Amino acid sequence: MNLPLSLLLTDLYQLTMLQGYVEHGMEEQATFEFFVRKLPPTRNFLLAAGLEQVLSYLEDLRFTSEELEWLNGCGLFRPTLVDYLEKLHFTGDVHAMPEGTVFFPDEPIVRVTAPLPQAQLVETRLINLLHFQTLIASKAARSVLVAPGKLLVDFGLRRAHGAEAGLLAARASYLAGFSGTSAVQAAPLFGIPIYGTMAHSFIQAHEDETAAFERFVYANPDDVVLLIDTYDTEAGAAKVISLVPRLRQKGIPIKGVRLDSGDLADHARKVRRILDEGGLADAVIFASGNLDESIVRQLLAAQAPIDGFGIGTRMDTSADAPYLDCAYKLEEYDGKPRRKRSEGKATWPGRKQVYRWYDADGRMSGDVLTLEDDPQEGEPLIQPVMRAGKRLQASAPLTTLRKRARDQLARLPHELRTLEKGPDYPVQVAPALRDLAKAIDEHRV
Amino acid sequence: MNLPLSLLLTDLYQLTMLQGYVEHGMEEQATFEFFVRKLPPTRNFLLAAGLEQVLSYLEDLRFTSEELEWLNGCGLFRPTLVDYLEKLHFTGDVHAMPEGTVFFPDEPIVRVTAPLPQAQLVETRLINLLHFQTLIASKAARSVLVAPGKLLVDFGLRRAHGAEAGLLAARASYLAGFSGTSAVQAAPLFGIPIYGTMAHSFIQAHEDETAAFERFVYANPDDVVLLIDTYDTEAGAAKVISLVPRLRQKGIPIKGVRLDSGDLADHARKVRRILDEGGLADAVIFASGNLDESIVRQLLAAQAPIDGFGIGTRMDTSADAPYLDCAYKLEEYDGKPRRKRSEGKATWPGRKQVYRWYDADGRMSGDVLTLEDDPQEGEPLIQPVMRAGKRLQASAPLTTLRKRARDQLARLPHELRTLEKGPDYPVQVAPALRDLAKAIDEHRV
Repeated sequence: MNLPLSLLLTDLYQLTMLQGYVEHGMEEQATFEFFVRKLPPTRNFLLAAGLEQVLSYLEDLRFTSEELEWLNGCGLFRPTLVDYLEKLHFTGDVHAMPEGTVFFPDEPIVRVTAPLPQAQLVETRLINLLHFQTLIASKAARSVLVAPGKLLVDFGLRRAHGAEAGLLAARASYLAGFSGTSAVQAAPLFGIPIYGTMAHSFIQAHEDETAAFERFVYANPDDVVLLIDTYDTEAGAAKVISLVPRLRQKGIPIKGVRLDSGDLADHARKVRRILDEGGLADAVIFASGNLDESIVRQLLAAQAPIDGFGIGTRMDTSADAPYLDCAYKLEEYDGKPRRKRSEGKATWPGRKQVYRWYDADGRMSGDVLTLEDDPQEGEPLIQPVMRAGKRLQASAPLTTLRKRARDQLARLPHELRTLEKGPDYPVQVAPALRDLAKAIDEHRV
Repeated sequence: MNLPLSLLLTDLYQLTMLQGYVEHGMEEQATFEFFVRKLPPTRNFLLAAGLEQVLSYLEDLRFTSEELEWLNGCGLFRPTLVDYLEKLHFTGDVHAMPEGTVFFPDEPIVRVTAPLPQAQLVETRLINLLHFQTLIASKAARSVLVAPGKLLVDFGLRRAHGAEAGLLAARASYLAGFSGTSAVQAAPLFGIPIYGTMAHSFIQAHEDETAAFERFVYANPDDVVLLIDTYDTEAGAAKVISLVPRLRQKGIPIKGVRLDSGDLADHARKVRRILDEGGLADAVIFASGNLDESIVRQLLAAQAPIDGFGIGTRMDTSADAPYLDCAYKLEEYDGKPRRKRSEGKATWPGRKQVYRWYDADGRMSGDVLTLEDDPQEGEPLIQPVMRAGKRLQASAPLTTLRKRARDQLARLPHELRTLEKGPDYPVQVAPALRDLAKAIDEHRV
């Protein structure tokens, strides 16, 4: 199956609204902001991700002739709209927090300012891209925090929600500090290091486990990590040891073994002893199998001698918090600030900026959310990244974003670095912003 | 961003294993089966989905010259493997349960029989496709069961995990009985009916809510459903009524209103009264906003006068059970049955069939899991669908699969039709299969 990415990847109401905007000439500048309303119960912070894909999407925003033909023929739209869409490209400005920035509820991470129909049309895909990568980067950061110095590999492609989710999860987890991914396509696409060992099927396809190991080694002598739990984990480790003399003669090193089932801490200890006594003290133990950050922390707390972890499904689906309560909301139109007041969903109006304060140790100590034209002390987090549809800088290498994420995680307050729910991080709403919201409610602006 | 679907959408270990298989001439027939190990705590059954995309993937299985070039240059693979991959296409057989079939743990829904490297290589994408659509169809079926006769629309694209997840969720939920989706691209791609109203931003971009309604109506006179909760829901309903005389004159009917926040049952009752008294007794009330099957059931139990539901994020992420414990396992190689015995993950060996029994009312009463060559009473659920790489039938229209799902849901045992956990459905493992597993464990086969 080939699912072409298309501008039709949008909600129908974007197009019906555009029909209204276009017919009534409502093409003044509109500002929308993407933000998260509140944290999932199991998150202390979020890590911004997905901006790169948003900017590419905006740069490439053109309807193809096939799409226009479909729109013309589907019976839902008038020629005025289709003519408008035929000429459409993105001419707006984008401001954003760099990917890898820690952020908190109500803080916009992306702001789009463009003629109303353009800024509206892109809503669905912008949310789709920013939501998912932020979700996964924020989840992956938790493993990074509990397992410093360990090899962490994304194993989630197979149970990620579709192809794009698998690839973007590889990107988001690498950005958050993972070492790499098992997803091959992430290497040519994003330049992410790829890792892999072998599956149980390789062992099962042979009559004999030792023979299977040996064949795998000769076919992949540069990266020998053997899966030893297909039948009996410790017996599997012993079989690996039995190969050592022959492989030494051929100059092939055994880099490590992988455990994928059972009591991982217990197996790791027993296997470590077998490896050490068998002359493989340098071989690493890599663990996988329904892992997440809580289990990794338990294993490390139990001092299980595990050097690396393959973390898959639960990360790529963000299983404990599979979505964020996020929105992309109109904050200003034609120079006037706007505010939605639906019950439980009221928004802060206007073009906003976030200022961050740090304590003497360089740790984040509080943010101020205010209007763009209300300068404050602290570090402004939102920067211009696109003007009149053109990027202001070339896209940053993923390694640079990864370094930013590492620096940001290092500056988190201590009490937010745990897996348990910490205190709310202080985000203060500045008087200028409160006053504006009040003025709108009282119809004074 | 454009993420080309590629055969590199696989786990690295598939390719390292292939290097082993190819170098040692291990190209005998292998049989793998895809099944779910156990149900999530909140599911009583699963609904098979994703086969159509699997068959397309297998039909199109070819490495492109760009992919081969990358494989050649990446430093991980030998020319023998790249040469093999250059000639690769899928020549195997596939057996499967039709999409829309209800199934239970340990029952294979797809079986692949092909030369070992082919059957192995496709593992990652097969799981990725079958897992996600089955996950979503099974989740969507719960809404279908609790809201018979209601309009159910998938609203989840924006918070689905990427583009493909959004589109495949539209497909899977439609298959399970939803009326349609908001995702426009699902119409040309899958022929799914699309639905949409308007967003709060359309209202907010106008100075006046009534003026916004009127403009929307003139731009979309054939499908007028107005969102009335941007500021005050009942006041919004009254503004809709104020438009009735003018719109009647122009012959434009108001089809309905949408509520998206607050106490939906309470608002629906008040709005129903306003509509009825204002001459809009025929207008429907459509509700959305963080809905799932539990909330829909509550609203219906409270006799809230709601005619349709937009169900988004929690369905498209299967939020209460965001993944399935599923696997694609080697069951036979070179004519010999195989079995993995890893702790907690042992599998049933051999090529299997599932027979289903029905009671006098035509409801499912129990399944028998056995070997393909051990015929039993009951309806065999697994059928050949591809032979030597070619489909045996043209792909079934989605409406046919949808009808199958409807019939299957109608035949579910009463106690599995609730949202609460019911008793385990009886799946009996036939003596022939138990004997084979035992024989393998005792090295007799």
